[in-house]
Amino acid sequence: MRTILIRGGWVLPLSEGGKPLQDGMVKITGNKIATVGPWREPVKETEPYEVIDARNRLVMPGLVNTHTHAAMVLLRGVADDLPLMTWLKEKIWPLEDRLTAEHIYWGTRLAINEMLLSGTTTFADMYFFEEEARAVEETGIRAVLSRGLIGLEEQAEKNLEEAVTQAREWRGRAGNRITVMLGPHAPYTCPPAFLKEVVAAAKQYQLGIHIHLAETADELVEIGKEYGKRPVAYLAEQGLFTRPVLAAHAVWLDDGEISYLARQKVAIAHNPSSNMKLASGIAPVPKLLAAKIPVGLGTDGAASNNRLDIFTEMRTAALLHKVQTNDPTVIPAETALKMATIYGARALGLGDVTGSLEPGKSADLIMLDLKKSHLTPLHDPVSLVVYAARGSDVSDVMANGEWLVREGRLVRWEEEEVLGEATRCAQSLVKK
Amino acid sequence: MRTILIRGGWVLPLSEGGKPLQDGMVKITGNKIATVGPWREPVKETEPYEVIDARNRLVMPGLVNTHTHAAMVLLRGVADDLPLMTWLKEKIWPLEDRLTAEHIYWGTRLAINEMLLSGTTTFADMYFFEEEARAVEETGIRAVLSRGLIGLEEQAEKNLEEAVTQAREWRGRAGNRITVMLGPHAPYTCPPAFLKEVVAAAKQYQLGIHIHLAETADELVEIGKEYGKRPVAYLAEQGLFTRPVLAAHAVWLDDGEISYLARQKVAIAHNPSSNMKLASGIAPVPKLLAAKIPVGLGTDGAASNNRLDIFTEMRTAALLHKVQTNDPTVIPAETALKMATIYGARALGLGDVTGSLEPGKSADLIMLDLKKSHLTPLHDPVSLVVYAARGSDVSDVMANGEWLVREGRLVRWEEEEVLGEATRCAQSLVKK
Repeated sequence: MRTILIRGGWVLPLSEGGKPLQDGMVKITGNKIATVGPWREPVKETEPYEVIDARNRLVMPGLVNTHTHAAMVLLRGVADDLPLMTWLKEKIWPLEDRLTAEHIYWGTRLAINEMLLSGTTTFADMYFFEEEARAVEETGIRAVLSRGLIGLEEQAEKNLEEAVTQAREWRGRAGNRITVMLGPHAPYTCPPAFLKEVVAAAKQYQLGIHIHLAETADELVEIGKEYGKRPVAYLAEQGLFTRPVLAAHAVWLDDGEISYLARQKVAIAHNPSSNMKLASGIAPVPKLLAAKIPVGLGTDGAASNNRLDIFTEMRTAALLHKVQTNDPTVIPAETALKMATIYGARALGLGDVTGSLEPGKSADLIMLDLKKSHLTPLHDPVSLVVYAARGSDVSDVMANGEWLVREGRLVRWEEEEVLGEATRCAQSLVKK
Repeated sequence: MRTILIRGGWVLPLSEGGKPLQDGMVKITGNKIATVGPWREPVKETEPYEVIDARNRLVMPGLVNTHTHAAMVLLRGVADDLPLMTWLKEKIWPLEDRLTAEHIYWGTRLAINEMLLSGTTTFADMYFFEEEARAVEETGIRAVLSRGLIGLEEQAEKNLEEAVTQAREWRGRAGNRITVMLGPHAPYTCPPAFLKEVVAAAKQYQLGIHIHLAETADELVEIGKEYGKRPVAYLAEQGLFTRPVLAAHAVWLDDGEISYLARQKVAIAHNPSSNMKLASGIAPVPKLLAAKIPVGLGTDGAASNNRLDIFTEMRTAALLHKVQTNDPTVIPAETALKMATIYGARALGLGDVTGSLEPGKSADLIMLDLKKSHLTPLHDPVSLVVYAARGSDVSDVMANGEWLVREGRLVRWEEEEVLGEATRCAQSLVKK
C-alpha cells in the first residue's frame, strides 16, 4: 500500500487533546491516516514512501459543510437583499422549477469546485439526488446526500419512494464516500402523515433525517397557527427524533427545546451567513454547545450566502455570537475550528470517519500556504486559521487519501471546463 | 503623458448615477482618470497608448479603509477571545510599550502589503507617524495619517506639538498621497483642556481630527461618571465638531446624537469585524446612512480583526445590519460597495480625489479576476463583489496612476522580504 509522509509545518490534529504541533507529521497509508506526531525521518520503512514537504504549510482536517443545496450555485447573486418570501416565491422557486438534470449536474460540479478549492472535503446536501450523487462519485469529495421532499406536493409519496430507492442504491457507494439521509424539507412543508411515513421509511432502512428546523420567526407562527404548537413539538409528535436527525438552522429555540434536542441526540447545522443575509435571526449556538449538541457549520445554498466557503462561516460564527451575547470570550477560535471540522463530522454521523487527523480515520486533510502577508506573523496557528485565513489560502486538499487539489489547482479535471458548462446552464436558466 | 486604456470586462464606476458597464473602458492619462465608458478601439490617439486586456476582469475603484492602526499587524493573533480590558491592558498595551521605530516601519510595510493585495488603495491610520509616513511614501499607497495622542500622558503637550510639526512637514507629500489629521485617541483618554488644545491646533493649521467615539458601553459609563454627559456632548463642548471630524466606531449613539453629528458634518468609520470580535456592539449604520452621514468601512487594527481586508468588512456590514434590524433589504450590496469606496473617500475628505472612477480623479483602481468557481455564474456584478468575492480575487491594483499589483503580485518590492523582516520584528516583540 502507498505511504505518504507529510512533513509540516504546523499540524492541527483536532483530535481529543491533540494540541497543535510545530514541525509535525502526518503519515498516510492507503486512504487512511496512520500516525500523527512530531516529524522524524523514517529510519527504515518496509514499504516505499513519498515525503511531501509542507514546512511552510499548515496541515489540518478537511472542512465539513453540514448544510447546503449544492446546485443552487447557479442562482448565486440572482436575487439578493429581498424579504424572504419575495426572494423565495418570486425569484428562487420559479427558477428552481426550470432546473433540468443537466443544470443540477453542472451546478453540483461547480459547487464541488468551490468547496474543494476552499478546503471542504465533506458536505451534507438537501436538494436533488441522482445528478448530485453522480457528481460526488466522479469528483472524489465526500457527501451526505438527501433528496429534498416537500410533503405538500401531489407526488410526495412517489418522491419518498424514489428517495428510499435512491438511498438504498447509493449508500456506501464511491468507496463509502457517499452516505444518504432522508430529507423532509421543513415542518411547514411536511404535514404529519407524510412525516410519519418518512420516519417509518427511515427506521426500516436505517437512515438519518436532514430537515430545516425553526429557521424563521414566521415558521413559529405558521406551525403554531396550524397545529397549536412549536416546530420542535410538532416534529417530536411525528416521531422524528426516534431517528438520528440533522436539523438545519435551529434559530428559534427556547431553553427547554435546547435541552430536549440534546437529550434526543439531535445534531444541528448552524448557517450564520445565510441566517444573517435573510435576516432569519441568530441561533443560540453558545447554549447549544453548552448542552453538548454537536453543532456543525453550513453555508446553506449559494443563493442566500453567496459563498460555499467554510472559512467564512468559521469566522462569522466566532464573531457573530460574541457581539450577540456581549461577551468576547464566547466561541473562541478553537471552538469555531472544531465546529468546522470534528463537530461537523459528528453532526453528520461521520465522527469516526473524518473531521480530525487521527490514526484509522480517512485521509481527509487540507494544507494552507502560510507564506502570505495576511498570515504573517504567526503567533497562534488556531487564531490564524479562524480569524485571518481565507478559503483561498488552501493550497492542497486530500479526500479519502487522494489528492484533489495541489498548489491551489484541481488535479483531476479542468476548472475552466466546469466554469464554461455551469455558465451556460446558469444563462439558460435565467433567460426569459 | 502616458495613456493607458483598460479594456473591460465589467467596469463599476460608482460615480453618481454611473451604472455597471459590461465591455467597459477606463482611460488613464498620467496619474488621472480621463474617461470611463463603453469600450471602443481608439481611432487615432495623438499620444502613444497602451491597452490592458481586462475582458475577464472586473474594474472598480480602489477600496478605502477608513480606520486602522497599521503596524498592529505585528500583534495579529497575539491575544484573542478576551474581555476588552484584559485584552487591552494585559496584552496589547504592554506589547505596544515595546514597539521600536523598526517594528513600526516593518509592521506598516506588512500592513500595506496586505491592504494592497486585497484591493485597498487608501487607508486612514491612527497610530505612530514618522515610520508609517515613510512606508506610505515608499510604497505608493494613499494614506490619511494621524499620530495617536493620549491626553492623559505626561508628555501629551509635547506629543501634540510634534504631531503638528509632523503634519506640517508631511501633508501633501509623496505626490499628494499623504494627508494628515490630528489624532486625539478617545474621549476617555483626552481631558477637556487637551482636547481644546487639539482643536486650536487643528484650526490654526487647517487639519481634520480622527478620534475613537462611543466604541463601547463602558465608555458611556466612564464619560458619564466623569463629566455627567455622553461622549458626543463631551466632545461638542470642547469644540471638536468645529473641525472636520472622522469618528471611528460610533456604536453607542442615540437618535438625537445621530441627527446632531449629521448637522455637524461628522464622518464615521464603521468597523463591523472589530466591533463584533471585541463584543463592543453594533453601530446604528442604517440610521447613520439615512441621516446622510458619510459612513466608510474600517478594519481597525489587526489585533482585533484579524485582517486588513475591506472585502470582509463590506460583506460583514451588509450581513450584520440585516440580522440586527430583522430586515433583509437593509444595506443592499450597492450600499455596502459604496461604503467601501466613495462614501469612505468622502469620510476622509478625499471625495474629489478617489473612491470612484470619474474623469479628473486620481487613477486609484483595482481589477478582480472573474475566472473562478466561486465567482461563477455572474448574474449581478455588484452582488458578486460584495457577497461572493474575496480580497484574494484582486489581481491588479493601481494607485495614483501607478501599478502596485499585477497578476496578484506586488510590483515594486518582494513580498518575501517584508514577510521576513516583519516576522523577525514580531518575534522580538513578543519574546520574554
